[in-house]
Amino acid sequence: MTKITETLTDLEIAAKADIRPIKDIAEAAGIPEEAVELYGKYKAKIDVSQLPKGTKNGKVVLVTAISPTPAGEGKSTVTVGLADALSRLEEKTMIALREPSLGPVMGMKGGATGGGYSQVLPMEEINLHFNGDIHAITTANNALSAMIDNHLQQGNQLQIDPRRIAWKRVLDLNDRALRNVVVGLGGPAHGVPREDGFDITVASEIMAVFCLASDLVDLKERLSQIVIGYTYGKEAVTVRDLGVEGALTVLLKEAFKPNLVQTIDGTPALIHGGPFANIAHGCNSIMATNTARQLADIVVTEAGFGADLGAEKFMHIKARQGNFSPDAVVIVATVRALKMHGGVPKEELKEENAEAVRAGIPNLEKHIDTIRRFGIEPVVAVNRFTSDTPEEMEEILHWCETNDVAAAVANVWEKGGEGGLDVARHVIKQLNTPNQFAPLYDVKDKVANKIRTIVQEVYGGQDVHFTDQALKQLMTIEQNGWDKLPVCMAKTQYSFTDEPKLLGRPKDFTITVREIIPKLGAGFLVCLTGDIMTMPGLPKQPAALNMDIDKEGNITGLI
Amino acid sequence: MTKITETLTDLEIAAKADIRPIKDIAEAAGIPEEAVELYGKYKAKIDVSQLPKGTKNGKVVLVTAISPTPAGEGKSTVTVGLADALSRLEEKTMIALREPSLGPVMGMKGGATGGGYSQVLPMEEINLHFNGDIHAITTANNALSAMIDNHLQQGNQLQIDPRRIAWKRVLDLNDRALRNVVVGLGGPAHGVPREDGFDITVASEIMAVFCLASDLVDLKERLSQIVIGYTYGKEAVTVRDLGVEGALTVLLKEAFKPNLVQTIDGTPALIHGGPFANIAHGCNSIMATNTARQLADIVVTEAGFGADLGAEKFMHIKARQGNFSPDAVVIVATVRALKMHGGVPKEELKEENAEAVRAGIPNLEKHIDTIRRFGIEPVVAVNRFTSDTPEEMEEILHWCETNDVAAAVANVWEKGGEGGLDVARHVIKQLNTPNQFAPLYDVKDKVANKIRTIVQEVYGGQDVHFTDQALKQLMTIEQNGWDKLPVCMAKTQYSFTDEPKLLGRPKDFTITVREIIPKLGAGFLVCLTGDIMTMPGLPKQPAALNMDIDKEGNITGLI
Repeated sequence: MTKITETLTDLEIAAKADIRPIKDIAEAAGIPEEAVELYGKYKAKIDVSQLPKGTKNGKVVLVTAISPTPAGEGKSTVTVGLADALSRLEEKTMIALREPSLGPVMGMKGGATGGGYSQVLPMEEINLHFNGDIHAITTANNALSAMIDNHLQQGNQLQIDPRRIAWKRVLDLNDRALRNVVVGLGGPAHGVPREDGFDITVASEIMAVFCLASDLVDLKERLSQIVIGYTYGKEAVTVRDLGVEGALTVLLKEAFKPNLVQTIDGTPALIHGGPFANIAHGCNSIMATNTARQLADIVVTEAGFGADLGAEKFMHIKARQGNFSPDAVVIVATVRALKMHGGVPKEELKEENAEAVRAGIPNLEKHIDTIRRFGIEPVVAVNRFTSDTPEEMEEILHWCETNDVAAAVANVWEKGGEGGLDVARHVIKQLNTPNQFAPLYDVKDKVANKIRTIVQEVYGGQDVHFTDQALKQLMTIEQNGWDKLPVCMAKTQYSFTDEPKLLGRPKDFTITVREIIPKLGAGFLVCLTGDIMTMPGLPKQPAALNMDIDKEGNITGLI
Repeated sequence: MTKITETLTDLEIAAKADIRPIKDIAEAAGIPEEAVELYGKYKAKIDVSQLPKGTKNGKVVLVTAISPTPAGEGKSTVTVGLADALSRLEEKTMIALREPSLGPVMGMKGGATGGGYSQVLPMEEINLHFNGDIHAITTANNALSAMIDNHLQQGNQLQIDPRRIAWKRVLDLNDRALRNVVVGLGGPAHGVPREDGFDITVASEIMAVFCLASDLVDLKERLSQIVIGYTYGKEAVTVRDLGVEGALTVLLKEAFKPNLVQTIDGTPALIHGGPFANIAHGCNSIMATNTARQLADIVVTEAGFGADLGAEKFMHIKARQGNFSPDAVVIVATVRALKMHGGVPKEELKEENAEAVRAGIPNLEKHIDTIRRFGIEPVVAVNRFTSDTPEEMEEILHWCETNDVAAAVANVWEKGGEGGLDVARHVIKQLNTPNQFAPLYDVKDKVANKIRTIVQEVYGGQDVHFTDQALKQLMTIEQNGWDKLPVCMAKTQYSFTDEPKLLGRPKDFTITVREIIPKLGAGFLVCLTGDIMTMPGLPKQPAALNMDIDKEGNITGLI
């Protein structure tokens, strides 16, 4: 099997997998037929209003990671493999994951459906459009933009200042040329000229709203609260002022139902919503997590990037708004990533270097420390790559043992659920041990204090510096009474600091907050630190160049 | 029944309709289960590779219309009602229609799913995203734009002249502020600044390609031939030069399968593709039409706008590329529209005015003449509105009788298929009478001659004037050997001329061709006359403002 694995791509493994009709998966998961809306043979949307009353109140396992590197950490792969392992141990398990954005799929080699023998299926369709959810969000976002520009054009009754519009257009693609644009050119019949820009859809507030709303009513209410800009008199203008929250909700109605798919092993997975973890909160929808909790005893879910970003926001934003708490946390670490944190450049990762692994461990150590500060004892999963040597793996496992950290190798890429059994046993042990989960800050605290708490307790930094602009925005936020919201840090994923090149575990640093942007629909305040990419670019050789399809519709080069 | 009809909206009638599971509709239509990919309970995609070999070779009934007016002619409504009537007469009938664009749905009150008791269901989902086809086309179009701008950014190996890029971005929305934009601003990291613009997706060449391709191989080949711009040396640059035809086809793979839905009466309908009929050819996909012909004895389909636009292109572009010929043509006329052609302003349409109806008939007469020139004897369907008086209706019927034109009232909005029986009987008679269908021009003829033929024979004009720019473009087209393609006239739908306000049947006019743009993927040359809108704007009170949804997901205000 190992030999075969090494010569097959993820797409080939997925194509050869023995996929079951999704209605069988739904039935096994306890989803009644009337709640299942098939989308082809292998995907379904779940009409949650048709689910049986009462809930299993399943326990939540959050999979997070050390600070990511270009070497790749395989968090989705571990999430899938761990869930398959839990299923093999006869735990009724369900996965809740984010939907892949087409931007990275077309841009860099890499989807978001796991890898090797730990994948969700049908991987092609999940990576390509899926059930259209992200397109619905793109459409709602851009319909709002069109309504704003139409308002300017048709007399601007609300007196919106075209220089202070805070709402950007979006596309679910990597397209740097759209970051900064001027719209409304061509004369009076063609709109009011103004500066604008496009973000990638997964960085939009509607994506965040979609993922945090608990039902259709909450969705509409949140959409209505979005601030789209300010008047000439600097008063906030909301979606409600424009009167389009109904239309936007109508556009999102079908997308809002969670999507059911399966792993190669047949474990049910709800994949729904996919906000970025830098500018937004980086977790799948509360709809999906709560639906999974209703149906299974254990829900395995993930949060984007490292624990400093995704897990922090999972705890302070998603869990709080979704009214649940995590019951166990898995931190994914890899030999390759720790080597990079230990100072090895990407080109030299293939050479054995146990010393560099050791030198990179402080990064893992800080993430462990963070999870413990939340009152949870984490499990470290060392995600095995075929190039890792036993000595390198042992370096991590030995350190964990010495420091009383539960740890095991996850060999899930190569062996699927079977390769995740050791991690799964640790997780079950944690689930059976009550934890003392508590958020690190009180939302009612002052905004600056909330930010300082995250910088000090989660990033291990010393202090926060606010630019004059940020201080001015903070004043506006306080004057409007928007300061009782959690903060959503927009920071580079590569470093605990706001400087992407400072790997490992930097100390004594200060984080500079450039801007604080109220996202009242999402219900958080975005704090921008450093340069945060809200519209990625394409590389010199985009992944799209490798893609092809034959006359029978067989796709090659997707991943 | 009449009373109820008058007080219910289309949405309410649709919501009350007794919709059947789409798998039952598929079974009745002779579609084997393995070819049916359900999208929810009431929609499906058809995997045509799973259809039984052999074909019924169904006859094709084209529904077209007089020159449209803001009064509305109800062509989709007649298409649906006629098909239901044919089904009632025990003819095995299937509908092939275009997919609605979200632009008009959010902008003006009006979807594209018929009306009253002649609707396709589920109307909400067909009008909102449907199965994501248009979003897939939007994504493929914009992925190509991103690849072009990335090529400029990464060294511009092909030496593409940023001033001569012929490929625009698209969104499936009405958004005038995007018609003329500047992209790539913000400095060297953010692309190469250049002028660009957005069209509505249904006006894009990919939509035309999608609708004219006969299979996946043809789709990829056509995509590869699209000219995206010119080099500094004025050589054409194609999608093949960029190497992304594989990726674009991959993005369109699922969308390319025709969508099956049903009428209120239960007649099967394939709704697939939806190009504009001004800038593009205005017909549903050849995939859908040919699939319907494989399954049914009669296929009722429509072409956009009046017979001068949609029907002409149906004959010269779609039928030619799809390798079939129309067997019968229905021309939809209404009292209201003829009154407008007879000089009555929109505000006064409610007042009875049989004289104005008579004065508007020359418009109908010219469309009848056109269809006869193609060798087909048309049937006129007088689509009844509740405000029409018997005298006004009689004016049309009497004229038709006097002039040996088969005609009948279609009361399908109010009565569904039952109201279309008279038209259906006329159609059956025509189907049983062999016709002498022939196109009006030979594709091998000179471009100027092909255009002149359309202007003289279809529009009833005298001559064509080419601007200097058009003549220059014509030279380029001839030098490149692209002149053996059919022409696709981009003309206002409101008039036979290039001046929207000249209603009725103008004579002795000259059409000015401003530009001739090669669309090598679609396989036609677009001839721009007058100002053609490729990105509509929103009205002062967009339809979106009326839309709402309650906590059970019930939508109001959609149409």
